Amino acid sequence: MLAVQRAARVATLGLRRANVAPALGRALSQSATAGKPIECDAAIAWEPKKEYWKDALTIEKVIVDPPGPGEVRVKITHAALCHTDAFTLEGSDPEGLFPAVLGHEAAGIVESVGEGVTTVKPGDKVIPCYQAECFEHDQHSDHCPRCRGYRVGKTNLCGKIRPYTGAGVMKSDGKPRFRSARTGEALYHYMGVSAFSQYTVLHEESCAKIRDDAPLETMNLLGCGLATGWGAVQNTAKVEPESICAIFGMGTVGLAVIEACKRAGAKQIIGVDLDDNKKSLAEEFGVTDFVNPTKFGDRPIQEVLVEMTGGGVDYSFDCTGNVKVMRSALEACHIGWGKSVVIGVAGAGQEISTRPFQLVTGRVWMGTAFGGFKSRSEVPKLVDQCMAGELKVDPYITHQVNLSNINRAFELMHNGESLRTVIYMDNDATNSA
Amino acid sequence: MLAVQRAARVATLGLRRANVAPALGRALSQSATAGKPIECDAAIAWEPKKEYWKDALTIEKVIVDPPGPGEVRVKITHAALCHTDAFTLEGSDPEGLFPAVLGHEAAGIVESVGEGVTTVKPGDKVIPCYQAECFEHDQHSDHCPRCRGYRVGKTNLCGKIRPYTGAGVMKSDGKPRFRSARTGEALYHYMGVSAFSQYTVLHEESCAKIRDDAPLETMNLLGCGLATGWGAVQNTAKVEPESICAIFGMGTVGLAVIEACKRAGAKQIIGVDLDDNKKSLAEEFGVTDFVNPTKFGDRPIQEVLVEMTGGGVDYSFDCTGNVKVMRSALEACHIGWGKSVVIGVAGAGQEISTRPFQLVTGRVWMGTAFGGFKSRSEVPKLVDQCMAGELKVDPYITHQVNLSNINRAFELMHNGESLRTVIYMDNDATNSA
Ligand SMILES: NC(=O)c1ccc[n+]([C@@H]2O[C@H](COP(=O)([O-])OP(=O)(O)OC[C@H]3O[C@@H](n4cnc5c(N)ncnc54)[C@H](O)[C@@H]3O)[C@@H](O)[C@H]2O)c1
Ligand SMILES: NC(=O)c1ccc[n+]([C@@H]2O[C@H](COP(=O)([O-])OP(=O)(O)OC[C@H]3O[C@@H](n4cnc5c(N)ncnc54)[C@H](O)[C@@H]3O)[C@@H](O)[C@H]2O)c1
Ligand SMILES: [Zn+2]
Ligand SMILES: [Zn+2]
Repeated sequence: MLAVQRAARVATLGLRRANVAPALGRALSQSATAGKPIECDAAIAWEPKKEYWKDALTIEKVIVDPPGPGEVRVKITHAALCHTDAFTLEGSDPEGLFPAVLGHEAAGIVESVGEGVTTVKPGDKVIPCYQAECFEHDQHSDHCPRCRGYRVGKTNLCGKIRPYTGAGVMKSDGKPRFRSARTGEALYHYMGVSAFSQYTVLHEESCAKIRDDAPLETMNLLGCGLATGWGAVQNTAKVEPESICAIFGMGTVGLAVIEACKRAGAKQIIGVDLDDNKKSLAEEFGVTDFVNPTKFGDRPIQEVLVEMTGGGVDYSFDCTGNVKVMRSALEACHIGWGKSVVIGVAGAGQEISTRPFQLVTGRVWMGTAFGGFKSRSEVPKLVDQCMAGELKVDPYITHQVNLSNINRAFELMHNGESLRTVIYMDNDATNSA
Repeated sequence: MLAVQRAARVATLGLRRANVAPALGRALSQSATAGKPIECDAAIAWEPKKEYWKDALTIEKVIVDPPGPGEVRVKITHAALCHTDAFTLEGSDPEGLFPAVLGHEAAGIVESVGEGVTTVKPGDKVIPCYQAECFEHDQHSDHCPRCRGYRVGKTNLCGKIRPYTGAGVMKSDGKPRFRSARTGEALYHYMGVSAFSQYTVLHEESCAKIRDDAPLETMNLLGCGLATGWGAVQNTAKVEPESICAIFGMGTVGLAVIEACKRAGAKQIIGVDLDDNKKSLAEEFGVTDFVNPTKFGDRPIQEVLVEMTGGGVDYSFDCTGNVKVMRSALEACHIGWGKSVVIGVAGAGQEISTRPFQLVTGRVWMGTAFGGFKSRSEVPKLVDQCMAGELKVDPYITHQVNLSNINRAFELMHNGESLRTVIYMDNDATNSA
């Protein structure tokens, strides 16, 4: 019922849907462009923009070079806007590079592959994953600096291509594959994805192949927000039945955390947000209580939660990116076993702090990136679960816009009006160069 | 061999050993004093003392009242000095109360028991445990605020008597059992133990009964430092074979951590201390590398360790109590899985901090109190392991003094000359009042 209700609310802002559907069926024919540069539309972030919600990006033609060795060129059909994009755009990301093509939550179809690529082929549906996964773990090879030997399985943070994605370039030659068609200037890749372009080039390690019947217009959300929220609960915190949970921030990530806590059998789920409008939404997703910290005067919200729960919560989650909230989330935990998971991304130079006694007395402070999921091996399974109706994606999609209206997505996010806005990439307008 | 070598180095400073040995055999006869106040010697901390190593405590007569309901009066035969005693004495402990009888690492013999006590009887050898353990967990009763219901087994931090031990009094009447024989003034209990008195009164929940043939002059170390260090490794961090570990601070706690890391099969164990004199000692206990942070100029020590280990350590431990060190210990951890355990106790108002990205990228910040051991159920097992030769205590005892020389123990600790100094409590000099 929830999915249906919400779908009815989706606002399709200036969306020309007709452009999208036919494109999906013609994926294989795109390989006619293989080996050649493609000229297409993209939304460019020319420089940091403190007020990111005002005309954030410029829609312009870009040239996308063919994939090099070990690379995959993907036609992006749908991308969603995540808070992390805005965070980088406003200049808060110490790693942020400009000019760049942002966007990291998306889905698409492989257009062509470079030399040596074996795990995807033209026509495959894929979800680009900003957290890559090399498949060298089992071989105990030394190729991946993180996954070898006795450490296999300890993390999802494969390090193989991280130095290159962090630098906004590709591994094979240390260069980006994007140029402005107007100025010729090179444009940096973003988080190894750069989804706000009709075509993008990915490392093979970043391409999660998903099933052929997957609906890309919804599954694109698995590229970040939903996987992160669900995984924070099941992989990182490992929430148990009967537990008491507190979630700070009721955006997409926070709501996905709530949903997963409910699925894990939590008996009390407390949503915390400054915005009272989030209350009824949070209740739909599963909170048993909603708390607005501004209603308690100077009283620290952690104190309120400890009192409410007779000692503190078993699990807490920061889904705001605010370092003060991260502290509250930790200190709201029960002595002896409470675990707090940092999900939010804080601005450059900001630090978390607490009295060490909080830890000595048994609280655990941890964090998660991409919810601890191994991207290429586990995202396809999440897609299966969504298509089996075990996990829901629709309720998180509140708006849909065309690429030409992408700035509206930033505005909606800033005003707290949207959860996820899906950007239809209008690939039919594409010309090959 | 280690035990023998070290035993040869033990300095017995003014120790009149003859006083001690006979007392052990006569334990049962002490119950003649049951029900009456006992006058005996104790070391009193009258007030905080910034320079705690200078004439720290005053040896005076105290009156020790009989145990109330649920209480146990214990003849302390041996106590050791732990850094936490000095920490409270110097005024750094926000919970510190004065005047008080300090000391929390000890062993002794039950003299008499109060109404309703069932788990120990006069003559039993016991280790007083500052971290109490009620035995109500299995009954799913509501008596213990922490251990009931679905949370059973999640922590060793039983909360049953914590409000009273924190306030320096006994649960049955909210009063201390100590008075100064000279002034009549009430003296607070310390950490629910107060071992620096020839007799003390404990809650039954704090009395770990150990086997009759246990040597109290060494087993007293299990009351804090050794159990804490060993447990931090096996219960809290759960160090695995082949791991890389870093230990900050080579005092008793740090060395016990090193010993346990070695036993857990760690392949590289890095000791970090400001004092180069600790190097050979640390090597005896098992470090493979010794690092002195002062030798690297302005370079943060975490950077040095990350480089040394090709990415960071799997486990790190703060055994200093310095909040800057706690940060270094966390940041020395490997991305993706490194765990850092805070053991040291920081001064009032001091805070730890780091960039939240450290946690988002997979490091875990945790802490331990009493090494996560459930005191009454697990300390007796540690005694068994020591007596079977699986765990060693002797190497940690560098000095022995009589109660009258207790201030020498503080001086030795402050000068970094000792690990543990065992205080022989000279109970033969005791008169019952
Ligand atoms: N670790 C990861 O892998 C990962 C992945 C995706 C997103 N993120 C981060 O997670 C965070 C949430 O992302 P999102 O897309 O859901 O963001 P969002 O902007 O949609 O939601 C944030 C919510 O937090 C609320 N909020 C803000 N300040 C608050 C405060 N002081 N107290 C309580 N609530 C407060 C807002 O009202 C809003 O509802 C962001 O910081 C994002 O960068 C991290
Ligand atoms: N959490 C618990 O349950 C628990 C139990 C016992 C002790 N403790 C605490 O553990 C800590 C260690 O106790 P201990 O008895 O071994 O103390 P100790 O004084 O014997 O040893 C401390 C060591 O740390 C070294 N050190 C000091 N500053 C340093 C720095 N900046 N970098 C590196 N090394 C440094 C000193 O040289 C010394 O060798 C204390 O803070 C104590 O209060 C905690
Ligand atoms: Zn890898
Ligand atoms: Zn209990």
